[in-house]
Amino acid sequence: MFYPPDPSSSHVSTIGGNILENSSGPKGLKYGTTKEYVIGLELVTPQGEIIRTGGKTVKNVTGYDLTRLIVGSEGTLGVVTEIILRLIPKPKARKTMLASFPSVVQSGHAITKILSSGILPAALELMDNACIRAVEAYQPCGLPVEDAALVIIEVDGHPAAVEEEIADCGRICAEMGATTVRTARTEGERQEIWKARKLVSPAITRMGPTKISEDATVPRSRIPEMMERLERIRAKYNINLVVFGHAGDGNLHPNIITDKRNIEEMRRVEDAVGEIFEAAVALGGTLSGEHGIGTLKAPYMELELGKAGLDMMARIKRAWDPNNIMNPGKIFPGPGQTKVKLLP
Amino acid sequence: MFYPPDPSSSHVSTIGGNILENSSGPKGLKYGTTKEYVIGLELVTPQGEIIRTGGKTVKNVTGYDLTRLIVGSEGTLGVVTEIILRLIPKPKARKTMLASFPSVVQSGHAITKILSSGILPAALELMDNACIRAVEAYQPCGLPVEDAALVIIEVDGHPAAVEEEIADCGRICAEMGATTVRTARTEGERQEIWKARKLVSPAITRMGPTKISEDATVPRSRIPEMMERLERIRAKYNINLVVFGHAGDGNLHPNIITDKRNIEEMRRVEDAVGEIFEAAVALGGTLSGEHGIGTLKAPYMELELGKAGLDMMARIKRAWDPNNIMNPGKIFPGPGQTKVKLLP
Repeated sequence: MFYPPDPSSSHVSTIGGNILENSSGPKGLKYGTTKEYVIGLELVTPQGEIIRTGGKTVKNVTGYDLTRLIVGSEGTLGVVTEIILRLIPKPKARKTMLASFPSVVQSGHAITKILSSGILPAALELMDNACIRAVEAYQPCGLPVEDAALVIIEVDGHPAAVEEEIADCGRICAEMGATTVRTARTEGERQEIWKARKLVSPAITRMGPTKISEDATVPRSRIPEMMERLERIRAKYNINLVVFGHAGDGNLHPNIITDKRNIEEMRRVEDAVGEIFEAAVALGGTLSGEHGIGTLKAPYMELELGKAGLDMMARIKRAWDPNNIMNPGKIFPGPGQTKVKLLP
Repeated sequence: MFYPPDPSSSHVSTIGGNILENSSGPKGLKYGTTKEYVIGLELVTPQGEIIRTGGKTVKNVTGYDLTRLIVGSEGTLGVVTEIILRLIPKPKARKTMLASFPSVVQSGHAITKILSSGILPAALELMDNACIRAVEAYQPCGLPVEDAALVIIEVDGHPAAVEEEIADCGRICAEMGATTVRTARTEGERQEIWKARKLVSPAITRMGPTKISEDATVPRSRIPEMMERLERIRAKYNINLVVFGHAGDGNLHPNIITDKRNIEEMRRVEDAVGEIFEAAVALGGTLSGEHGIGTLKAPYMELELGKAGLDMMARIKRAWDPNNIMNPGKIFPGPGQTKVKLLP
């Protein structure tokens, strides 16, 4: 059987953390997020009562869906002590392809064309030129360092479907002006392709002492616009901004490499992060696709939800946890918290 | 593109109703319920404020998942005025099979074997002998009236996968002792098979003036046990109980044919319905897989959720709708409401 959610942090993250953050990862595009696989929970409430939500059936409409309310609640509603997960049959085959493009716009068109052709890849990942160069400097993988964007496509399912779909993806990439199109012929070659993607985070971490990792998410048709806005934010604030992420579902990871000892630069980074949130919301997207709110994004909750929307969330928090003993300070902005604050 | 939820009532139900009941149907097995396809809502709150939840991105972890809290809330939290749905690529091919078995237990084993073989059918429906006979009496479809159970299996996806999987399903059914195994060769033959399933509800409606339709759901491995318990309930209360439903996900539809003018029989039916709820919960299942709670099942909420679990739901209702103006009387039991009440 198969448990699809695959956060890129799976070597360090735990299932408890995955549930309370509603983690995702590359496979979210085809298979959905952690939420889709949690069908029951045991929770200790702020009152110290033990409750069970959902159960062992996939269908359950007995009152409100408390399971999915708790998934992604960042520990603010209670302590999860048991999790019931749903598994699905494991796909029989998969194929992985790497394609690179001379411009980000071309890669965006290839992604849109693939998704509108009736193919739903298991993963559709994007790395910008800064990421490609960072990986090659860190651990050479033979990536095309001159290209503006690199796309990794994985399809899975029945062997015949997989053969056909990966061929179609290759044809579409070539039509959209790809300079490289390479399909892994062996599991070893497949792992080589994924290694390049998984090295992005360690590689960019080496570029500077402090890494600020965001996950602003936009409707996938708006990815080219979001990439342009990120480019403008990079220039405006003169910061080291690299972009990679789950392009198939619009979940980008703009990362800023900085140094928290450089107070002047950190102020610029704070403003830039705020502007990234504003750009995502302006394009019909969200502050966070999979990382959650925590304290950093809390000041921007009202921007996305509006005063009334945030109030309806706060009503739930107060009704469940009137003494605010469950992970206080998370999700909801404190008094006077109006902008990103990276420095103490 | 493809919107998978297909409530059997789709010829009369509306998308608004589907959202507030979290409707499902045969395709829930492979594709999940309505909830999985709703990514954003506009809601008028009980305070008369307009809020937007979720949005146009599939991934969104900006605070609590209000979208999925509202889906299935039976109108008790506000008025939905806009719905953003997600579509997926349409499967390229599908195949439909009808198999019948001399005993319900054998059909249960066939279902379990298919699902554990790595095949995830788009639909896996069950009809008991009473349903088979009711359909044949209403509108003859050439169904095997001597058999105890009829199973309808539909697989969809890539043409090669579909061919292979339907052949495997046929082989498994034969191994488990099926007396009939028939695959539709044309779209017309496919519609003939589905017609038999869709006629169940009108056919049994003709069997008596009053039809009480339930949807108690159990983990799918417990279906044979649930069928036995239903058989015992039928005998104990001497009622006309027929069973059909979405066997693949454990979502059965026990229907009682009765006459509301027969007070004595209706009392027995009330007790039988209560015992069906108790049986589902005892087997690790739920009061309702897709019909919702309304007023009929409200007295049994505490049986499934416990006092503390029901209290946590009621806290949300009170926090959002302190004046109880949104569909009052639904989901939450009123004072002294302790058992099923079918008569005024």
